[in-house]
Amino acid sequence: MIALFTDFGVQDPYVGQVKAVLAAAQPAHPVIDLLHTVPAFNAHAGAHLLDALAKGLPEGTVLLCVVDPGVGGRRQGLVVEADGRIYVGPDNGLLSVVAGRAGIARYHAIDWQSDGVSDTFHGRDIFAPIAATIAAQGCGDRRLRRIDAPEVCFDAGDLARIIYLDHYGNAWTGLRGGLLAGSEPLVVGGRPLSRRRTFSEAPKGEPFWYVNSVGLVEIAVNRASAAAQLGLAVGDRVGITVGGGSLH
Amino acid sequence: MIALFTDFGVQDPYVGQVKAVLAAAQPAHPVIDLLHTVPAFNAHAGAHLLDALAKGLPEGTVLLCVVDPGVGGRRQGLVVEADGRIYVGPDNGLLSVVAGRAGIARYHAIDWQSDGVSDTFHGRDIFAPIAATIAAQGCGDRRLRRIDAPEVCFDAGDLARIIYLDHYGNAWTGLRGGLLAGSEPLVVGGRPLSRRRTFSEAPKGEPFWYVNSVGLVEIAVNRASAAAQLGLAVGDRVGITVGGGSLH
Amino acid sequence: MIALFTDFGVQDPYVGQVKAVLAAAQPAHPVIDLLHTVPAFNAHAGAHLLDALAKGLPEGTVLLCVVDPGVGGRRQGLVVEADGRIYVGPDNGLLSVVAGRAGIARYHAIDWQSDGVSDTFHGRDIFAPIAATIAAQGCGDRRLRRIDAPEVCFDAGDLARIIYLDHYGNAWTGLRGGLLAGSEPLVVGGRPLSRRRTFSEAPKGEPFWYVNSVGLVEIAVNRASAAAQLGLAVGDRVGITVGGGSLH
Repeated sequence: MIALFTDFGVQDPYVGQVKAVLAAAQPAHPVIDLLHTVPAFNAHAGAHLLDALAKGLPEGTVLLCVVDPGVGGRRQGLVVEADGRIYVGPDNGLLSVVAGRAGIARYHAIDWQSDGVSDTFHGRDIFAPIAATIAAQGCGDRRLRRIDAPEVCFDAGDLARIIYLDHYGNAWTGLRGGLLAGSEPLVVGGRPLSRRRTFSEAPKGEPFWYVNSVGLVEIAVNRASAAAQLGLAVGDRVGITVGGGSLH
Repeated sequence: MIALFTDFGVQDPYVGQVKAVLAAAQPAHPVIDLLHTVPAFNAHAGAHLLDALAKGLPEGTVLLCVVDPGVGGRRQGLVVEADGRIYVGPDNGLLSVVAGRAGIARYHAIDWQSDGVSDTFHGRDIFAPIAATIAAQGCGDRRLRRIDAPEVCFDAGDLARIIYLDHYGNAWTGLRGGLLAGSEPLVVGGRPLSRRRTFSEAPKGEPFWYVNSVGLVEIAVNRASAAAQLGLAVGDRVGITVGGGSLH
Repeated sequence: MIALFTDFGVQDPYVGQVKAVLAAAQPAHPVIDLLHTVPAFNAHAGAHLLDALAKGLPEGTVLLCVVDPGVGGRRQGLVVEADGRIYVGPDNGLLSVVAGRAGIARYHAIDWQSDGVSDTFHGRDIFAPIAATIAAQGCGDRRLRRIDAPEVCFDAGDLARIIYLDHYGNAWTGLRGGLLAGSEPLVVGGRPLSRRRTFSEAPKGEPFWYVNSVGLVEIAVNRASAAAQLGLAVGDRVGITVGGGSLH
């Protein structure tokens, strides 16, 4: 299985162009749109989203990951093997949280150029052909060169910020649910929110937090938009009160 | 063929996560995105949309249907066999209009929990695995238990309300075209609209109604947005004048 | 491979209905969503977008192209063979730029009606079944009739207007990059923009133009929206100063 994880959006022709390359190279491989609405240009939020979402995919999945504002510049192309999955994308930190949280990760730089490569769409022209080849025959490609570490790494620990707003208006944070043993209030914009197990437990219109289905702390409102009600945006800080102190 | 019918939206990772489960279980089955923009949390509108859209799918299609604000609470999981197709989803009325309008329907409760099931995403964790199994081997699954009737049923008759707004600004109603023999005016917000056969018959900018390609009465404007021009929203009532009287 | 190119949008059930027809007829053929956000009803912009995007698809691809405000009226259905690809859609100019720029093009009118054909959705009821048949067995279908020329043709030369705005806010024009030898300023709303090779070369927030990954002149801003910053809309004129004179 090849899974796509990008900030290409869902309305533009970029996803289709990538899929045409994959279908021409590997028509029998299923291709899954995991997420195309990573906050635009935001490799940091993307790195935490990728870590949360990739865990649900089978081992052996190849993830084609593109949030790439530096395309055509000096940043390298990167392949990461971690926890049985293989990630292909730019070396700008996007793949670094998955790698940092994995037990063991192996890294490859992509050493390849070809005449048909554009300056602005390496997702289609470099990462997609590499991902298709890896899906068929693994990382023994001569266009890959083993390296010890990537160039750009984000802190792989929890991130006490909002990293995604979904279309219901729920706000995902970069806090992993495992961090929170019980029912500590989550503090958002100075307002403490209680924990609920599921939406239907919360009174309609009441903001709450819960551990979402990919293991992240999420801020939600039953049958309404938490983003609109609380004025939330990607990047906003959230806080947790732990044992009298504060964790931010 | 497995068809997806949800209020997950088209921008979020929820559809991709469901497809990853289906692809892992049944890689050879084509999966079709029928609709992911059922009005959010609105099982009533969804039930009528599902009835209209499912008719166009081949017999044998398995429809994975998720509009599920009560997830994690007491509502049951349900499988409905009706008119040669099989529907999997929550027992909150979403599958009840299809069932009510079918000649014969058979019902099964889903009796299954497993360790990996989240409290908030049964679409991915329960309904998708069940749908994949049914697509491969039918309803003889031991996780299914025959029941006589679902718990929640909506009236399966015509619904004189707007149930969907498309991106052109056309407004779908829950009225079936067969109800209307001729050219009765449809009354929307106190304004009577004439019937047209197709868009190009209507003068530009003039609101009209017609029987759309899934058999529903639809309010439209040639090359413009009926929703914007008439101020329409999902849930708005529409009326028909029939033989001097009114049907609402 | 069958590629879809429409103004159906990404949120509505229209794409899914077309795919259900294709999957029922040709389950083994990969279907690619090339673009569903052609500016609504705008066959002129669509014709230039189609020409730019189709070039990246393999020979043998069948393109199902639907921007069809005249559906149900007198316009014909059309099949065009050009540069090794086959295009199916309405004869309203949408396929004419591809045909006009190809070395040789062959044309077929679609002579087919059937009981199940709606008045308003020929994409699903006529063009999709024809495209599925062509994908399997080529243009020797008895529902096709060779003709010398289509009824509607747009000028196939460069179009000095904005034809598409993507979700980042980049504005695609109908000018082919090959027209511009060097670094002529592009004039947009009276303002001259410099050429850059790639986004990361441009200072943040500075509008520029470049030749995009499908060969068109595009107006962009590094990490921001050119559409918002410059107030751009589809249809806006852009100009090029060539050797002291102006090309519009």
